[in-house]
Amino acid sequence: MTEPRTADRRIADSTVRRLSMYLRYLEELDARGRPSASSEELASLSGTTSAQVRKDLSFFGSFGKRGLGYPVHALVIRIREILGLEREWRVAIIGAGKIGVALANYGGFLQRGFHVAGMYDSDPGKIGTSWGAATVRDISHLATDVRGEGIDIAVLAVPATVAQVVVDRVVSAGIRAILNFAPAQLQVPEGVTLKSVNMAMELEGLSFALAHPAP
Amino acid sequence: MTEPRTADRRIADSTVRRLSMYLRYLEELDARGRPSASSEELASLSGTTSAQVRKDLSFFGSFGKRGLGYPVHALVIRIREILGLEREWRVAIIGAGKIGVALANYGGFLQRGFHVAGMYDSDPGKIGTSWGAATVRDISHLATDVRGEGIDIAVLAVPATVAQVVVDRVVSAGIRAILNFAPAQLQVPEGVTLKSVNMAMELEGLSFALAHPAP
Repeated sequence: MTEPRTADRRIADSTVRRLSMYLRYLEELDARGRPSASSEELASLSGTTSAQVRKDLSFFGSFGKRGLGYPVHALVIRIREILGLEREWRVAIIGAGKIGVALANYGGFLQRGFHVAGMYDSDPGKIGTSWGAATVRDISHLATDVRGEGIDIAVLAVPATVAQVVVDRVVSAGIRAILNFAPAQLQVPEGVTLKSVNMAMELEGLSFALAHPAP
Repeated sequence: MTEPRTADRRIADSTVRRLSMYLRYLEELDARGRPSASSEELASLSGTTSAQVRKDLSFFGSFGKRGLGYPVHALVIRIREILGLEREWRVAIIGAGKIGVALANYGGFLQRGFHVAGMYDSDPGKIGTSWGAATVRDISHLATDVRGEGIDIAVLAVPATVAQVVVDRVVSAGIRAILNFAPAQLQVPEGVTLKSVNMAMELEGLSFALAHPAP
């Protein structure tokens, strides 16, 4: 089931995002016992065409049979493998403020194969407090913990003004994957992947639209 | 301080997003008592040029003085006005699953001028339960509540398979602004603004990158 590495790397970001969408939908169908799904169904969910769905999925081997649709359960397993979800990733939450704490308490991380291995902060008032299954450690321990316990992903929940400094620290600690919740454009060196979630920004986009309705 | 409506509508989405970034940074500086900030500082945070910052801000009137930088506190107030953050928006959380509950418990919404006015679900086992300051109501009450209590924004935290049906219901209840957490591409009619936050998708993008490292 392993693809040649070079083939995998050719997969575009937009394809990976669509695979995530297909997966979420297929998992829901699987839980309801649906044996098969059509490319049209997957297309309507992900705002694309059935031709695009067939192209995305053909890339990973022959799957759908004309007229029968895709086998839901087998496709769930295959997409989870492609996305690297067949194993557990160890996540460190950096920043024990409101968002950090909400994420630590939010069980969804665990369910999807992302295990909160630790929380870090530099504030002595926060170090030692516990949230969910995690206790906040001094961020100066991060590099040691990455080596000792193996941390794969850093979730950045720190103020915008310090976000770049913290990212630099996370990268030099050896972490190669970062999910950023700080509303800032951050720089990472090659070989490090950074993705951003901009909850406040999206909300303020809505607020702006409501405050300035179209005439 | 009100702009002509037509001028406001010309502001691009990308500008609104940068204003959100500037605001976050300026608020942090303001809290620390910094009187002024340069366009270079704001540019480095938001991954743009100081010329772009000056252009973005000049659009809203004359602000910066050459050599003095921008007055932090005045600019915070002005950007909050532009983004429609000088008033409180009433938010309904649709879906009392893990994400809905985490959002109801997450005080950040309130702080930024977004007040959780209610939670809605269709599951009889969830209706009547309380999270944060909100009690889950039957979604069949939504249209009445929008008219009676005034709900501005719906936060969608429902499974992908039902997301479009729920969006249609939210729109026909009279809501014109939707923050979507479901990993699905949703259709809304003209005059309705929809923004998406894709936490699971971003995490899976990281997982994919870690599972398939560059050679």
